[in-house]
Amino acid sequence: MEKSDLQQVPEFSAPDAKGIGLVETQSWTADLGAKGFDLDCGETLPELTLAYETYGQLSEDRDNAILIAHALSGDAHVAGIHSEHDRKAGWWDIMVGPGKPYDTDKYFVICSNVVGGCSGSTGPSSVDPNTGSPYGMRFPVVTIGDIVRAQALLIGHLGIDKLLCASGGSMGGFQALDWAVRYPERVASVHAIATAPRLSTQAIAFDEVGRQAIMADPGWQQGDYYNSDDVPRSGLAIARMIGHITYLSEEQMYHKFGRRLQDRDQFGYGFETDFEVESYLRYQGGAFVERFDANSYLYISKAIDYFDLSSGHHSLVEALDGVQSEFLVVSFTSDWLFPPFQSTQLTRALHANGVPVTSLTIPSTYGHDSFLLPSDELAGAVRGHLKNTQTRVRKAHAARNSA
Amino acid sequence: MEKSDLQQVPEFSAPDAKGIGLVETQSWTADLGAKGFDLDCGETLPELTLAYETYGQLSEDRDNAILIAHALSGDAHVAGIHSEHDRKAGWWDIMVGPGKPYDTDKYFVICSNVVGGCSGSTGPSSVDPNTGSPYGMRFPVVTIGDIVRAQALLIGHLGIDKLLCASGGSMGGFQALDWAVRYPERVASVHAIATAPRLSTQAIAFDEVGRQAIMADPGWQQGDYYNSDDVPRSGLAIARMIGHITYLSEEQMYHKFGRRLQDRDQFGYGFETDFEVESYLRYQGGAFVERFDANSYLYISKAIDYFDLSSGHHSLVEALDGVQSEFLVVSFTSDWLFPPFQSTQLTRALHANGVPVTSLTIPSTYGHDSFLLPSDELAGAVRGHLKNTQTRVRKAHAARNSA
Repeated sequence: MEKSDLQQVPEFSAPDAKGIGLVETQSWTADLGAKGFDLDCGETLPELTLAYETYGQLSEDRDNAILIAHALSGDAHVAGIHSEHDRKAGWWDIMVGPGKPYDTDKYFVICSNVVGGCSGSTGPSSVDPNTGSPYGMRFPVVTIGDIVRAQALLIGHLGIDKLLCASGGSMGGFQALDWAVRYPERVASVHAIATAPRLSTQAIAFDEVGRQAIMADPGWQQGDYYNSDDVPRSGLAIARMIGHITYLSEEQMYHKFGRRLQDRDQFGYGFETDFEVESYLRYQGGAFVERFDANSYLYISKAIDYFDLSSGHHSLVEALDGVQSEFLVVSFTSDWLFPPFQSTQLTRALHANGVPVTSLTIPSTYGHDSFLLPSDELAGAVRGHLKNTQTRVRKAHAARNSA
Repeated sequence: MEKSDLQQVPEFSAPDAKGIGLVETQSWTADLGAKGFDLDCGETLPELTLAYETYGQLSEDRDNAILIAHALSGDAHVAGIHSEHDRKAGWWDIMVGPGKPYDTDKYFVICSNVVGGCSGSTGPSSVDPNTGSPYGMRFPVVTIGDIVRAQALLIGHLGIDKLLCASGGSMGGFQALDWAVRYPERVASVHAIATAPRLSTQAIAFDEVGRQAIMADPGWQQGDYYNSDDVPRSGLAIARMIGHITYLSEEQMYHKFGRRLQDRDQFGYGFETDFEVESYLRYQGGAFVERFDANSYLYISKAIDYFDLSSGHHSLVEALDGVQSEFLVVSFTSDWLFPPFQSTQLTRALHANGVPVTSLTIPSTYGHDSFLLPSDELAGAVRGHLKNTQTRVRKAHAARNSA
């Protein structure tokens, strides 16, 4: 298989000449004083640092801010490049930049790495100020709610009272949905893309097997591998391979790989790679280990499994009572990890609350990964929805000012 | 979760008072002389032993023999019990026994453990006569074709020229299909249940991740763990957990487990079991390790991946040219590992060759496991198809005798 073939199911977009160009990840440590950052699990983080990137300019009225939330393996680097030598742009470069759907000529776009992550935000690989050593598994379990409350502190720090939009795909969508329920007055619109009000049982099951693979790897060492030569490479690679299968559709896998053999004309009759699809998975598993922390994989996948928008309520309809945002809900036909019926459940519960919803099921063969790939339909819907939301927000603002 | 709940998605049927009762596994070593048993990979097995069970009586005309082929994790023990204390009967006890669809009052039923297996047939855990030590990974890679050719030797040894039926679900179906193509004159009918002419790309991908998990386990020791205290328990358990997810449907998983918590009222905020589905998977993974050999899992899953009924032909239609059996093709609506469209491909290719086919897609929410669970529709179709085949075979025999 050619390298270019692998890249046709890209995890990250290639750098784009029309893109936003050089960007920098920034770091912000919350001023929590002695009280720390309380978590849903009952524990308290003594320190909270978030890595984040911003693109575009915040308007004078501070009414054009869009928060983009990342998925399991994402980070704050949504768009642009960090160096002229970067071969890959940020993970949603196709959607964020000058003239792109999340248009940085018009909007101020923010993305922060989640709490529990490994790309600059406080997580299991961070040093615990109480011990001077990395937290490892002593890091408390975090939830999507914790992640969102940390984001809200950052948004406040950036001087933004109300987001024009909270947007995200997959786990990013969980965060966008949590924003709508947790801070109804602080978010004018929500883009919930390839997501759901909660994970399916099957998806929890896959996550659990991935965690088991990491924790069974002797390199894991109960999570204390940061100062060791041995790290849970195989375990994390296996978790990632399982993930990758669930991100693609069988149709797309068949189309890309079928039963074609890798670098050979006939079966090898051994346990090396025979099929292209095996080679693809090994490549993806190996590449992931270079950039991601196994403990973060445990913590973030757990946060995903725990998320349930209707938690603490009798129903999803009740949970969405009080929502003030307008919604764009997008699913993809071949997505079997977050199947379209889950978006339909969400849409119906929003309808039952009289929330304005634009709901799309986009035909695509790319499975869950569809939301990361170019789609005119997604691009158009995002553009239109943002424009409408901004018009509505500005009209309301003008009406208040003239009142 | 109650134990009884776990057993509602059974891997094996419970002993049945109306069942066949006590049965014994037998062992047969082929008389190969010095030439051994040649394999598709080009290597030769110096010895070939098959574990097998038989039920019922072979008729005087030797025309009532049914070969049942087992799936990945199965063995020769299809029906009945090995001891009065057995809490589980053979893996298809619901289908095989007196008065059951594969009626042992009428038919002579045979099942043998596959070559490469770990339940009495020659496989990687067998002792290599050339070294006096277990083969481990020095065992040659075997194919479905090798498995079937070994079965054919056993069938010959039992004095059977022609099978009334070759039947199997999943990988067992691969063997039944291979019989029809390899020995067209030796099999009057084929029951291809929850199977396909070849594995999907996605299913190969899941198998590969399972193999990677086994081979990444330090207990695996390049396959030489047989005389070691350490065995690849975690790796095999992970492979089995992945398998189990693919054997069930999301609908059934949701119905059985939903998001219910295991032995707790609220999240544990740790990495022990939270959800029932996690507990179920850990239980299944752990139980499997007690009864199955990790190397056999590698070899048999590889044989499954390699199988392609149209291999060596320009098309599936061409591959089925020359088939003389009549077919019963059964799929289950919720089976996403061997989805119904694959059975449709098979049926169409049989139609194109004028092969008589009864084709059923049975509504079921149990996923791939459906073929192991009680189904009046499957039971009825098997009864009817066998009866018709036997009538046809006996009419033809009578016609030949009177001619």
